[in-house]
Amino acid sequence: MDRPQKVVEQILRGEVRAAARLMRDLDDGIPAAREVLKKLYPHSGRAHIIGITGSPGVGKSTLTDRLIQYLRQEGHTVGVVAVDPTSPFSGGAILGDRIRMQRHALDEGVFIRSLATRGHFGGLTASSRAVITVLDAMGKDYILVETVGVGQDEVEIAATAYTTMVVTVPGLGDDIQAIKAGILEVADILVVNKADREGASRTYQDLLQMLELQSIRKSKAWKPRIFLTRAKEDQGIQELLAGVREHQQYLGENQGEALLAARYQRVRQEFLELLKEGVFRELVDQLSGNGRLEEIIQKILAKRTDPYSASEDLIAAILGGRK
Amino acid sequence: MDRPQKVVEQILRGEVRAAARLMRDLDDGIPAAREVLKKLYPHSGRAHIIGITGSPGVGKSTLTDRLIQYLRQEGHTVGVVAVDPTSPFSGGAILGDRIRMQRHALDEGVFIRSLATRGHFGGLTASSRAVITVLDAMGKDYILVETVGVGQDEVEIAATAYTTMVVTVPGLGDDIQAIKAGILEVADILVVNKADREGASRTYQDLLQMLELQSIRKSKAWKPRIFLTRAKEDQGIQELLAGVREHQQYLGENQGEALLAARYQRVRQEFLELLKEGVFRELVDQLSGNGRLEEIIQKILAKRTDPYSASEDLIAAILGGRK
Repeated sequence: MDRPQKVVEQILRGEVRAAARLMRDLDDGIPAAREVLKKLYPHSGRAHIIGITGSPGVGKSTLTDRLIQYLRQEGHTVGVVAVDPTSPFSGGAILGDRIRMQRHALDEGVFIRSLATRGHFGGLTASSRAVITVLDAMGKDYILVETVGVGQDEVEIAATAYTTMVVTVPGLGDDIQAIKAGILEVADILVVNKADREGASRTYQDLLQMLELQSIRKSKAWKPRIFLTRAKEDQGIQELLAGVREHQQYLGENQGEALLAARYQRVRQEFLELLKEGVFRELVDQLSGNGRLEEIIQKILAKRTDPYSASEDLIAAILGGRK
Repeated sequence: MDRPQKVVEQILRGEVRAAARLMRDLDDGIPAAREVLKKLYPHSGRAHIIGITGSPGVGKSTLTDRLIQYLRQEGHTVGVVAVDPTSPFSGGAILGDRIRMQRHALDEGVFIRSLATRGHFGGLTASSRAVITVLDAMGKDYILVETVGVGQDEVEIAATAYTTMVVTVPGLGDDIQAIKAGILEVADILVVNKADREGASRTYQDLLQMLELQSIRKSKAWKPRIFLTRAKEDQGIQELLAGVREHQQYLGENQGEALLAARYQRVRQEFLELLKEGVFRELVDQLSGNGRLEEIIQKILAKRTDPYSASEDLIAAILGGRK
């Protein structure tokens, strides 16, 4: 790896190869890469981050592809983070459907990064945040973060974007309806894709009703909008983007009050996630190194203690808890 | 709440109402409930835990329902933990499709518990483990754990069962194919449900091929089996259960070598999860209490530090890391 300061400068100039190398080095856990990230951080915070989430098969990738196309036509630079729901056991990425976006591969104004989970106590959230920071520091105007909206972490990643888009399609089974209801609350914009399918207006009506119920419960200043699209046929994308702009404008009102609040939440979240992973990793390292971990597991297996008591005792010993 | 010792005795006798009350109290974070859980733990470890995971809409609930039916017919008692993929923001459970299982609601030998995520740094994994411990201590012969196989946590929960079943259906989009590939590695048993649909034999062949590739990479003693079912029409369930038994038998071979290894992994996993959540919760409490957290967030917002350096410094101060 080059000198950290040199890499920082390359990335601030938007150099694609330096950014790709840094992301790979971050994945591999190279300490110097982390130092670069620290130096890049103060240069981030300018991009508008859009989260795109929804069940498998609703056409998120196609929609993302269209959004890239339109944003590029307007002259904006775009970064994309696609979070792949792959095995927490293998760490391997399945890049199959990313191929759809390959037509942007030769466009210097677009940077696409696919992420897989790494290791057991995975850094899916941490990795995606690091990539967003790099893209942001590169000067991308828009960063699209595409995740599958089912798991906790995946919803979380999309939800901490400035504008969160939840995508659905007409006529899914009730399993998926249930999920949709669950992530509805994080949506700033709702998209009914494949809107030529039977039941589109029914889905639209259902969503509208759910939004009304929601707005009774919590009175937010922003009322989520619903858009009908057919991403494959390039229908309704312009209207959707106008909706994104409207939300962006809302965030900027009153000296950017809502935007500052969103930014505060992002920073808080990011710091706490890093703290959680970091404390845990360091602790497990120490406990593995001195044999304490193995000792505790054997004690639990022998039923001389239980995992609840064992963890409480250990935490009290470290942090002086309130036992 | 009754005296902990009394509750423990009620649950060891298998009393349904005491168990339901305890699970609710655990959800509500009542300290006495945690004390009961500690006392129950040494009585757990006898049930055979079966994880059932797969994408939304593949018919996991219907399949679970059938498995309950057959296990009951054979005179076994059954516990069910259904992990609902609901909002990490609301904490509300969507119980809609659990209704399918309601025909077992009056059967004293079946205990069904739906779980939602609670709070931001949620205890989805921790909650489901606690419920499993209670069901196990109640003396249930089989515990079925149904999760949506997309998120990291959800896959993890199913994967730490003794027998893990991954369910798919013929002819899903490539998004879902990708997921299936990802969780294939945790499967002891693969189920192609809705097997009367077009493309069933193709899906079967695809899975077979993927399994063969996998067995080259890692030579495990157990070769995953594939079963075709039509859960709604009650087809293929008996064969599937025979497959579960075969796997159970495999785990018991050589003085239960494989079972002991699985149990070791479960205990290790459970302890580490409790440690991770517990350390983090205690730490955030302390940092919020003394104003340090707010101080750090403001410093990051003012760009006088970054989240990476801030978390590293804090961890080094607490644990004396290797900085």
